[in-house]
Formats: sequence, C-alpha cells, structure tokens
Amino acid sequence: MKIAILGGTGKEGAGLATRWALTGHSVVLGSRDAERARAKAAELCEITKKLTIVGHTNAEAAEMGDVVVIALPALGLAKTLPEVAAACRGKIVVSAVVPLTFGGPRLFTPPPAGSAAEEAQALLPEANVVSAFHHIAAHELADTDESIDCDLLICGQDTAAKETVADLGRSLGVRPIDVGGLSNAGPIEGITALLATINRRYRLKNSGIKITGL
Amino acid sequence: MKIAILGGTGKEGAGLATRWALTGHSVVLGSRDAERARAKAAELCEITKKLTIVGHTNAEAAEMGDVVVIALPALGLAKTLPEVAAACRGKIVVSAVVPLTFGGPRLFTPPPAGSAAEEAQALLPEANVVSAFHHIAAHELADTDESIDCDLLICGQDTAAKETVADLGRSLGVRPIDVGGLSNAGPIEGITALLATINRRYRLKNSGIKITGL
Repeated sequence: MKIAILGGTGKEGAGLATRWALTGHSVVLGSRDAERARAKAAELCEITKKLTIVGHTNAEAAEMGDVVVIALPALGLAKTLPEVAAACRGKIVVSAVVPLTFGGPRLFTPPPAGSAAEEAQALLPEANVVSAFHHIAAHELADTDESIDCDLLICGQDTAAKETVADLGRSLGVRPIDVGGLSNAGPIEGITALLATINRRYRLKNSGIKITGL
Repeated sequence: MKIAILGGTGKEGAGLATRWALTGHSVVLGSRDAERARAKAAELCEITKKLTIVGHTNAEAAEMGDVVVIALPALGLAKTLPEVAAACRGKIVVSAVVPLTFGGPRLFTPPPAGSAAEEAQALLPEANVVSAFHHIAAHELADTDESIDCDLLICGQDTAAKETVADLGRSLGVRPIDVGGLSNAGPIEGITALLATINRRYRLKNSGIKITGL
C-alpha cells in the first residue's frame, strides 16, 4: 500500500515512515518544503536500506497516497488541509494529530470541534477520517530493533476504514482496538498529554498505554 | 485510615468501599438518604465479614472521613459539594467522578472547568482535590477474589496528597502513577469514555488501562 504522511519530516511522521517502509509499504513523505521532504526521504532510505520512501509537497503526497496520514502540528490543519482536500476525496485519512499546548495552563484542551480529528473531518468533508497512532512514541518508532509496547486505539465512523488502519497497525506489531466513532477522538488525543507528563516526570521517552481485560 | 465515600451507595463507591474494608480501612458510605447508606453499609459488612463500614448522610460522612472520596454523578457536584465544603476543609478529597453523557452525540465532553475534578476543587476551595480511581471497573472491584488489572492514574496539585492517594491505591494492589497537576484531570476522566466504549463493543465489563515503558 502507498502511504502518504503529511508532515512526514517531523519525528512522529518519520518514525511511522521508517517502520512502514521496513514492513514493505511504499511511503511518500509530505512537507510544505518539497526539498526538505526529499532530504528526509533519502535519509530514511539510507537507514532502512529500502528505496520505497520518497519526498514531495504535502499536496503531491496526498495525491499519491492510497491512505493519507496527517502528522501535522494541530495549528497547521486549517492552513494545510484545504490545500489537500481534493486529493483526499474518497480516501482514508488517518489523523495522528495531537493538539497539545506546551507552556500553557493546560497541556490538552480539546479544539472547538471536539478533537483535531473532527477538525480534520470538517476540513476534508469527502474523506473518511480515522483517528489513530497518537500514543506510539517517536523514539520507540525510531528504535526499529525493538518491538512496540503499546496498543493502537482507533476511532472513526467507517468500520471498513478502521479495519484498513488496524492492518496498518498490525504491520507494525501493535494490537488494534476499535474505540467507536470519531466523537471519541478527543479522549484518545488527550491520553497523549498524560503520556507526555509521565515521560517528563519519570524521565522516560516512550511511555505508552495498553488496554487490560481484553 | 477512615475513608468517606460520597455517593457510596453507587456501584463504583460500594466497590471501593468493599476493597478498602477488606484491607483494613474504616469506610463511611455517604448518601443523600442516610437510611439507604446504612442499608448498603450493612450489606457490604455482610459480604466482607467486616464491621468497619457504616452509612450516613453525605455531610456526616464528609465530617467523619480523614480522606473524602467523591463518587457522585457529575451533575450532582454543584448541589452536593457546597453542603460538605466546611467538612472537607483541609482534607484530601479524591474525585473519582466521571462526567460521561450517555445517549448524546459525544460520550465525554469536559465540563466548563476542564474536568469534574477541577469543578470539585472550585466548589471545595479549602480542600486538596486529587483526581484518581476512574478506570477500575465497578465489576472488577466487586469481584474480590481477583486482583485488579489496572494502573491508577493520579493527578493533583499537592505531592503529599497524591502520595496518600497512591497508598490507598497500593492497598488495593494497583500501581499508582503520578500524572502531574489537576489540569490533567480532563484527559484522565476522558479515558473512561474509551473504556466504556470498549466494554460495550467487545462485550466486556472490566477493561482497564496500563502504562507501558514504566
């Protein structure tokens, strides 16, 4: 499958790209700056010894992907997503966006739409937005010798789209868990604030979560 | 330690009472209706073969407790907490309140204060509010033959208060994790929406969460 990652030059996006390339997927890194995307893609090809990672502008990447993953900063959605709306039409779009505010009174405040994923759905009305991949630390993705010790919480409106995203998770060795409709995206995104706090407080880089009793 | 549980006749409150009584704590169940509290206390004494559970009104219970646990419905805070504010002065108050809305468009929407715990802190300005015990299913608390497979996420402003709550968790056999200040209470409460969804979707009664990498 060809996976486009918008904001793919960031740590989380690059980490996902690395892991997916290693499992045999083709990856297109998107960036505002095509040159930066190409440079990061070349770097990841070097690391993974795969030639299946390329770099383009976000708009070109969205056009090329069978599935489009958004790993953009939360504040960048309103600017970037309208530019890729046509390219995302009818596609599965995975929001891995985490709307955290560092240095403010509150690390996580849900956006007015309820979550970044719901904001993305509003900006991409003809795409099928699924919320996932918020809790796997970039550090853990980058350390490809280690398995990933985290469950994959997935929510969205469309069961078939969630199943495709579940398969993308299984290819990384994580257990997918269906957590209902997109209205649960806020609590999923909020967990990242807790993990960020735990990482800082316990001097970790890769805390994650698992669901028990399942 | 004497633990008051406001809303202690509900499933979650009664489950906590049962477990704490079994570990040697004294428990005062609070209810709007003292008679109902007494009846539930008698029932739990029968189950636990302990005589350390009593029932009173919420106000009397708050007066008697060294630590006060709030297991009230979220919508009941504004009415009940002002009645116990004087009794809670200077005490540790544990908010286990989960502001979920069943049947609406969104299972979890943070209250205007950011979380039920922050609402409780605003209503009990002279108490030391700690947020904890949202994720241990009532069903799991009630099944006292089994150990509890869930971490205890704790947040609050005061480190010593959090340590006391951590000890209350350890007495139940769960691992306490310090997740920073009370501003993280919203994401902690939100997780309960995810667990409720998982329980329904996977036909479980007692899903929980654990932090990995710690």
